[in-house]
Amino acid sequence: MQIVIGLENLKKISRASSSRIVFLVIDGVGGLPHPKTGMTELEAARKPNLDRIAQESITGLINPVSMGITPGSPAGHLGLFGYDPVKFNMGRGVIEAVGIGLELGSTDIAARGNFCTVDNQGVITDRRAGRISTEKNAELCRMLGNITIPGIQIRVTPVREHRFVLTLQGDGLSPEVTDSDPQEVGKTPLTVKCWSSQAQKTVDIVNEFIIQAGKRLQHEVPANMFLLRGFSRLPHMPSLHEIYKLTPAAIAVYPMYRGLARLAGMEILPAGNDISSEMQSLVQHYANYDFFFVHFKTTDSRGEDGNFTAKVQAIEELDNALPALLKLDPEVLVVTGDHSTPAVLAMHSWHPVPFMLRSKWCFPDQVSDFSERACLRGGLGQFPAVEIIPLAMANAQKLNKFGA
Amino acid sequence: MQIVIGLENLKKISRASSSRIVFLVIDGVGGLPHPKTGMTELEAARKPNLDRIAQESITGLINPVSMGITPGSPAGHLGLFGYDPVKFNMGRGVIEAVGIGLELGSTDIAARGNFCTVDNQGVITDRRAGRISTEKNAELCRMLGNITIPGIQIRVTPVREHRFVLTLQGDGLSPEVTDSDPQEVGKTPLTVKCWSSQAQKTVDIVNEFIIQAGKRLQHEVPANMFLLRGFSRLPHMPSLHEIYKLTPAAIAVYPMYRGLARLAGMEILPAGNDISSEMQSLVQHYANYDFFFVHFKTTDSRGEDGNFTAKVQAIEELDNALPALLKLDPEVLVVTGDHSTPAVLAMHSWHPVPFMLRSKWCFPDQVSDFSERACLRGGLGQFPAVEIIPLAMANAQKLNKFGA
Repeated sequence: MQIVIGLENLKKISRASSSRIVFLVIDGVGGLPHPKTGMTELEAARKPNLDRIAQESITGLINPVSMGITPGSPAGHLGLFGYDPVKFNMGRGVIEAVGIGLELGSTDIAARGNFCTVDNQGVITDRRAGRISTEKNAELCRMLGNITIPGIQIRVTPVREHRFVLTLQGDGLSPEVTDSDPQEVGKTPLTVKCWSSQAQKTVDIVNEFIIQAGKRLQHEVPANMFLLRGFSRLPHMPSLHEIYKLTPAAIAVYPMYRGLARLAGMEILPAGNDISSEMQSLVQHYANYDFFFVHFKTTDSRGEDGNFTAKVQAIEELDNALPALLKLDPEVLVVTGDHSTPAVLAMHSWHPVPFMLRSKWCFPDQVSDFSERACLRGGLGQFPAVEIIPLAMANAQKLNKFGA
Repeated sequence: MQIVIGLENLKKISRASSSRIVFLVIDGVGGLPHPKTGMTELEAARKPNLDRIAQESITGLINPVSMGITPGSPAGHLGLFGYDPVKFNMGRGVIEAVGIGLELGSTDIAARGNFCTVDNQGVITDRRAGRISTEKNAELCRMLGNITIPGIQIRVTPVREHRFVLTLQGDGLSPEVTDSDPQEVGKTPLTVKCWSSQAQKTVDIVNEFIIQAGKRLQHEVPANMFLLRGFSRLPHMPSLHEIYKLTPAAIAVYPMYRGLARLAGMEILPAGNDISSEMQSLVQHYANYDFFFVHFKTTDSRGEDGNFTAKVQAIEELDNALPALLKLDPEVLVVTGDHSTPAVLAMHSWHPVPFMLRSKWCFPDQVSDFSERACLRGGLGQFPAVEIIPLAMANAQKLNKFGA
């Protein structure tokens, strides 16, 4: 789903102004009824501040991508930031790099790596090398990071357990390269090949890297090999400043969300460790930006744990932190999530996500609580997440008339 | 937003029949609550006829373009007539020409002109030449209209105050031409250039016109120069007859709306000066057409004035004129607006517009008054304006099955 009017047209009609937009993203906030009580996490939570905002807002339900589609965090956030999550879909390597906050240049190539175990025939016996410790991972990454190939800058960055990111920087690289990961035990790692002939140089470099790295790892136990997949490059995205003339900033505890915000051209502000330090940062930097993305993660984590009660508590924790934000009284306040994570499913889901927008010009509906069932009766109906930013821009009076 | 099924498919399944469709467009009808009463203009108005229609109709809310987008009048009407308002977006020159009812050929070029004041160095000191009188404007336009360039027919048509339209007719013209208007005082008018090489001939003609015109204006005070912008050509639109086999007619007091109707291939009927003369014209010509666009302007004007009470009165004035229309009892009656113009904002806005459609087959919902809040609960939900015509065609039993 692209924004109906298109980014080029929005660029023509957007205007800078002093009004402020705050996007509060409650990760995975949408839920499903608990089988015992029939209430969702939002319905079960005590959340006077969210409900008060709902009373003053126009509400609805958003589809992060389209009906039935469960988004990963990148697709969910791209949609919220107004980028077509299908067109700007990112490769696994780039997502992993963004997820740990690596800064990638526009021509850099990133791949996701797994340390693995192979037998003396080179056949994979464990695709995750027994989930080695993150410390061991870091030690192995340092070994591989020392490999030199002329003209290429190689970085090998540990993630958690057996996961790492390989990034290549240099002239004439291409992401059109196949995986070395056969995705099965009982096979040998694959020789990397070209998807297109322009990628021959990159293929040669990657295969050379694999040979050299294999030699360095051969006596390691159990991580004596590795698998690469998802060679990719950053999507070319116009920034929120280019399109909307906004001066945007992001406040997020987790690196993944800071990375996604950076792709949209947001400045990254300090976040501390929890929602109250995030709110402090918002207050502190409020004068200097006109768009704030504030990300709250705990709801998604507890949903993925399948812990209904803990997700309810996370919603209440967020609600408790809201007075600082409400005191700022931004011209436009948007509260929603990047997707649903029902505790009863213990994973991201495709269900539409409660949404509310408060502004002087929003025309509040009669919805008085922030929940899936209440927002279903909201004044905005159900709509694609990519349309949120134009709506927020309109409410902030930052859009001129279309077509004179 | 295009019609989902597409104009080509509609052409295949449309059929002529004797049933009639009337589109009553109440310009800028949508509003926002008055801060004192909490009621919108429609909620505050006494409008028994509109409410009676609502009781017999299926209702909903339309988005003229898409969420958050405030349309100008051309975009709003193109959507109502079933044309993608983004694809058929018109340049400033064409909009100005259409707005004063100029007939343009499909290859003619139109530009918007402003008379301005320049100092003896040729630097702009007033972009509007002190808003000269419309009479003076007409005199200057006659002077410029006498300029001759071989092979080209030049028309210079006054609009109000300092505004005029330049139109060029001839072979091999192109609208791919830059503005001469630098949009700022303190600069000199710009030499016109090509956007594409095909436009060299047009550029030469325009620059020659500017030189000759400059000489004729040099001793005028204060309008001793002019600025041109928005060179453009009519969008190529298939007519309502081509697509839907309709014989359509328009009744509108203001030239802009007659111009837009002409673009859609409607015949222009006399309108007189107000809604009651418009209704008389409808009655008089009712036998000869099967589609009528009837335009009521006052609601938008009073909304733009920021005069809540006067907009309420305009709604009541319209309602009073409805019995003549109701007596005709058209097979399909559509009542809506091209956009909202809330008096509290005193301008066009992005808010969705109340909509109702009455026909024998419409399946009335439980909405019994015509207002923003009531239509939000309507049987059609919220939908893009471009989908109205297929829905009206279906209710008029003028569409065959799709796909056999």
